[in-house]
Amino acid sequence: MSARFPSRLLEEAVNEFASLPGIGRKTAFRLVMHLLRRDSAEVRRFGETVTKLRDDVCYCTLCHSISDTPVCNICSDQSRDTSLICVVENVQDVMAVENTRQFKGLYHVLGGIISPVDGIGPSDLTIANLEERVRSGGVKEIILALSTTMEGDTTNFYIYKRLSGYEVCVTTLARGVAIGDVLEYTDEITLGQSIINRRVFSLPSQG
Amino acid sequence: MSARFPSRLLEEAVNEFASLPGIGRKTAFRLVMHLLRRDSAEVRRFGETVTKLRDDVCYCTLCHSISDTPVCNICSDQSRDTSLICVVENVQDVMAVENTRQFKGLYHVLGGIISPVDGIGPSDLTIANLEERVRSGGVKEIILALSTTMEGDTTNFYIYKRLSGYEVCVTTLARGVAIGDVLEYTDEITLGQSIINRRVFSLPSQG
Repeated sequence: MSARFPSRLLEEAVNEFASLPGIGRKTAFRLVMHLLRRDSAEVRRFGETVTKLRDDVCYCTLCHSISDTPVCNICSDQSRDTSLICVVENVQDVMAVENTRQFKGLYHVLGGIISPVDGIGPSDLTIANLEERVRSGGVKEIILALSTTMEGDTTNFYIYKRLSGYEVCVTTLARGVAIGDVLEYTDEITLGQSIINRRVFSLPSQG
Repeated sequence: MSARFPSRLLEEAVNEFASLPGIGRKTAFRLVMHLLRRDSAEVRRFGETVTKLRDDVCYCTLCHSISDTPVCNICSDQSRDTSLICVVENVQDVMAVENTRQFKGLYHVLGGIISPVDGIGPSDLTIANLEERVRSGGVKEIILALSTTMEGDTTNFYIYKRLSGYEVCVTTLARGVAIGDVLEYTDEITLGQSIINRRVFSLPSQG
């Protein structure tokens, strides 16, 4: 599939798709052939949507989430609790927490996680902006909702230290056995932690 | 991942990518997030390439392969043998045969294969154009290079019958044990056919 294309336009389109992560040349070719069979207006809309996304999308000046406006619709929502900030790695995580419908505060998107291996330090993330939000007052609690990995723990610890001078409660997500997990197959560290952090049994509340 | 997007532009872009075959919503999201991190000019080029492909690409009036010009560079190549036409299903197959460097004739792209299950009949393919090429003269051999499936065999047979009134030799690709195949794991139909169609042993020619 590497050799002579019958059309330069075809080759360029295949190259563009193959430049995306996880898309090989065979898949790229298949996607391009699919687009060729699609309606011309549909394909033009596809191309324009991609270009518009990159040119017009902006980041919320408060929470740094992706937004169509300078302040995103979560930050500008008057009904939300502005004293509560949930710190997440990226926009996907904002959506994941939003989908639980359990959180009515605001967010702060770090734009990554501290990872020396990948060369990502605190200054590459929006941690200074988070500190600024805390300094400007009105924030009672910071919920650290990062991945439960080494990098997540490092970032949690760094933010905790950085905010230690402010009157704000720093919390993290509960860690334990996931809902639906079979105990036999739960890893020992999770199981051990969930024994240490056991809770008084209560009947499930009616949300 | 199905719920509220923080940005309409983001949602539209994810929807566009998710409309491609084999790309789910999670993958679409990942691709869009990747594009957001890419250089603006690169993403614009991506969008424009896709749009241009659909609007500007054309099909060769002779062989019906994808082309940038009304007659493709294979059909317009003076050094190729115009008496030999290799019939293939699609452009990928043209490229596959070209990559072997064993064929110096022309091609004819059917644009599919006869498949009653998918509602594809002979009139949906470029078989009438193939007949027209044979009728206009100068063609000595038609090589049927279709998949060795039920649909491929049906299409082979249909084209063979349709061209039976013309003075042209219709051939098909050799079928047999693939190079590198272990005999023990070769299916019995292929093996049976390759015994029936056995050839006189000869030392491999120095290509």
